[in-house]
Amino acid sequence: MSTTLRLFLNVKFSTYAQHYSSKSGIVQLMQDLSIAPPPGGQLYPMGGGNPAHIPEVEEALRQIANEVVGDTVRFARMVGDYDAPQGHERFRTALAERLSNLFQKPLSAQNIAITNGSQASFEVLFNAFAGAFADGHWRHIELPIAPEYVGYNDMGRQQRPILRSTPARINLLADQQFKYGIDLDRFRVSSETSGAVCLSRPTNPSGNVVTDSELQEVAEKCVSAGVPLIIDGAYGLPFPGMIYTSATPFWDDNTILCLSLSKLGLPGVRTGIVVAAPEVTELIRNANAINGLAPTRVGPELVLPLLANKQMDTLCQQVIRPHYLQKQAFALDTLRDASADLPIRVHKPDGAMFLWVWFENLPGGTQKLYEAAANEGVVTVAGHHFFQGLTTDWQHANECLRINYAGNPGLVEEGIRRLIAIARRLYESETQASIAR
Amino acid sequence: MSTTLRLFLNVKFSTYAQHYSSKSGIVQLMQDLSIAPPPGGQLYPMGGGNPAHIPEVEEALRQIANEVVGDTVRFARMVGDYDAPQGHERFRTALAERLSNLFQKPLSAQNIAITNGSQASFEVLFNAFAGAFADGHWRHIELPIAPEYVGYNDMGRQQRPILRSTPARINLLADQQFKYGIDLDRFRVSSETSGAVCLSRPTNPSGNVVTDSELQEVAEKCVSAGVPLIIDGAYGLPFPGMIYTSATPFWDDNTILCLSLSKLGLPGVRTGIVVAAPEVTELIRNANAINGLAPTRVGPELVLPLLANKQMDTLCQQVIRPHYLQKQAFALDTLRDASADLPIRVHKPDGAMFLWVWFENLPGGTQKLYEAAANEGVVTVAGHHFFQGLTTDWQHANECLRINYAGNPGLVEEGIRRLIAIARRLYESETQASIAR
Repeated sequence: MSTTLRLFLNVKFSTYAQHYSSKSGIVQLMQDLSIAPPPGGQLYPMGGGNPAHIPEVEEALRQIANEVVGDTVRFARMVGDYDAPQGHERFRTALAERLSNLFQKPLSAQNIAITNGSQASFEVLFNAFAGAFADGHWRHIELPIAPEYVGYNDMGRQQRPILRSTPARINLLADQQFKYGIDLDRFRVSSETSGAVCLSRPTNPSGNVVTDSELQEVAEKCVSAGVPLIIDGAYGLPFPGMIYTSATPFWDDNTILCLSLSKLGLPGVRTGIVVAAPEVTELIRNANAINGLAPTRVGPELVLPLLANKQMDTLCQQVIRPHYLQKQAFALDTLRDASADLPIRVHKPDGAMFLWVWFENLPGGTQKLYEAAANEGVVTVAGHHFFQGLTTDWQHANECLRINYAGNPGLVEEGIRRLIAIARRLYESETQASIAR
Repeated sequence: MSTTLRLFLNVKFSTYAQHYSSKSGIVQLMQDLSIAPPPGGQLYPMGGGNPAHIPEVEEALRQIANEVVGDTVRFARMVGDYDAPQGHERFRTALAERLSNLFQKPLSAQNIAITNGSQASFEVLFNAFAGAFADGHWRHIELPIAPEYVGYNDMGRQQRPILRSTPARINLLADQQFKYGIDLDRFRVSSETSGAVCLSRPTNPSGNVVTDSELQEVAEKCVSAGVPLIIDGAYGLPFPGMIYTSATPFWDDNTILCLSLSKLGLPGVRTGIVVAAPEVTELIRNANAINGLAPTRVGPELVLPLLANKQMDTLCQQVIRPHYLQKQAFALDTLRDASADLPIRVHKPDGAMFLWVWFENLPGGTQKLYEAAANEGVVTVAGHHFFQGLTTDWQHANECLRINYAGNPGLVEEGIRRLIAIARRLYESETQASIAR
């Protein structure tokens, strides 16, 4: 047995396997979701992107699940049949109807494909629209704004990097807040070097919501260059609708909209949705078959009744949105209260479920803060992971930190207090050091 | 609107997107699962790999689902939390215990990773063990026997083909049967050109079960060359246990065993399982996080109680195995009865849920038979899809056809009768033509 064990200790992986490195930011973030508490201590989980457990939403889903499980035929169909590789036909039809109303465009089931989560959608889309092309050009996924979602970072399956980002403009606001804007002078879309443009709206990690006029300009640049626009609506419209400012839903024939059931409360079932021209949904269908035969049926089965009876809109507007807004206000109050003496700012929290905190001039940067806090059970995400695709260093990238406020309010409150206490120690250590110098 | 529509009609995909071609065999096979009946006619679905709906199994799963849904905390955890990227911890622990007993090896949860279906496991494994290596060698996934599972065929994400197959030896048996053997003289494993060896046991499509002694020889060649052996146990042991001959379960430290919950009756929930050394399960964990954040929790939650209370073994041995054996006997009888006058043979059906039929010298080959039958609603899979990785043409590859006998027995009976009637027409057309000459 020791002989064969040794073989594996010398296991040879291909160069392709480097795409699956343990050092990937998203690997670390997902592992942090199941981190153990420190010895004898408490865990304050504010790291990964787990959504809130909202009793009303869970009860609505549980009632549907109860009906499915109570009906032998429906249950047998949900678990016992492969779905079509493009995904659940009736769900796609119902969603197309809902989106046709929302966007005032004639969408059909053909415009929709189901995946095993939005992350899986991006892996296919990014590589199908970027990298090497038959015409000899290398095209990028253009991120109009950095910071952007960390999960985009390790999607490239080709020989050179596929992401290219434009650093955000930082607009300082009253009340120790700031807001990112798209630097529309610098951000360019070219038919020769841009394969697609991608932005999340609301933005993970910053809670930013790209304004209607910014989005309009980006969309026009895309159409002019003949390059598709990918909008990551994991937190957006029509569901889960975690937008706390005025923002118009957007889709046109040049847009690929990626939706997800995760933030609605179903991260455990892995369902992503791609809304696009049939050429694109057929590509997703093929990738589903080749990479995994078919997507899961569970998410679509549980959510179809909510779409059909319009309960979805009620839940989003009257339950989910107020739930997060209340938690956000509480987290913001806690943060302000704890950090009034520190030089920190928070991004204007217009969407999603994160406080994106800028610890200006923090000694050691937020990676050090993240590590010190994690050692004490306070789990967050260091900001540098979200600044992918930049060609130059940017000090700001080492000074931000993402806090997920969706969890238990008591733990979030205490977690934020402890985090800020650690940050204060780091700031003070520098003051001590400079006094000593 | 017409402007942007036109843009998409000219959509530019990268060369990488060619990996997701509509012409892929597995895309066609998965689409055939939801094919419409012919106008005014009946559908006889014997194409894709959908398992049987077995009432006792579905009832056992439904009872567990009922308990989960009846418990607000368990339900909330199943759907409302991301799992760890390596997959469900308690399920992995319980399965490790079961497998430790089966293989008499000290396996732990660290040896197990969950994926969104076995097809997803292979996509990662094949590319991590084959293709380009840092030492300059190009290594292959060696298939010791062709025909093998069609889903392996389009897994390569690299610039050259990664599969290399050795044609099966054909042993003719009594009673118009035959059995494939591994051509152990021709089949070689080399540390320089072999990245991994892979075989399904039982074999999809042929229903072959590689013998203990063949497997032992292959495993020894692998150990000698320092190359891992991937065993695809989607139909095998310990579950679903669709083996109808004597075969010893095999695992050692040089083996990567891929299991699935699909043929147990859960294809709709998408759960695959990789059993291997920690270096390999960590690679799968990373790929899960990067490609999809985390695998689904639904499959593990539904099956964990069956593992814990040993009901799994009872279901496999006393329900699933007899169910398929009975259907197989019925399908075989129907086939023999319908085709007594034709020169066709069936592979010895030692496992899985397929009749693999060899239509020797069929005019036009089985692709023509598949098409003619599909036009009349009789859906099967033409055999040539399963002969990937061969360097030379082989007439046998165009003379086989896979029939899934797991479906409704009445439809399978009538479907086989109609299929054979069409095959007879094809044979007779040739006879007519040669008489005319």
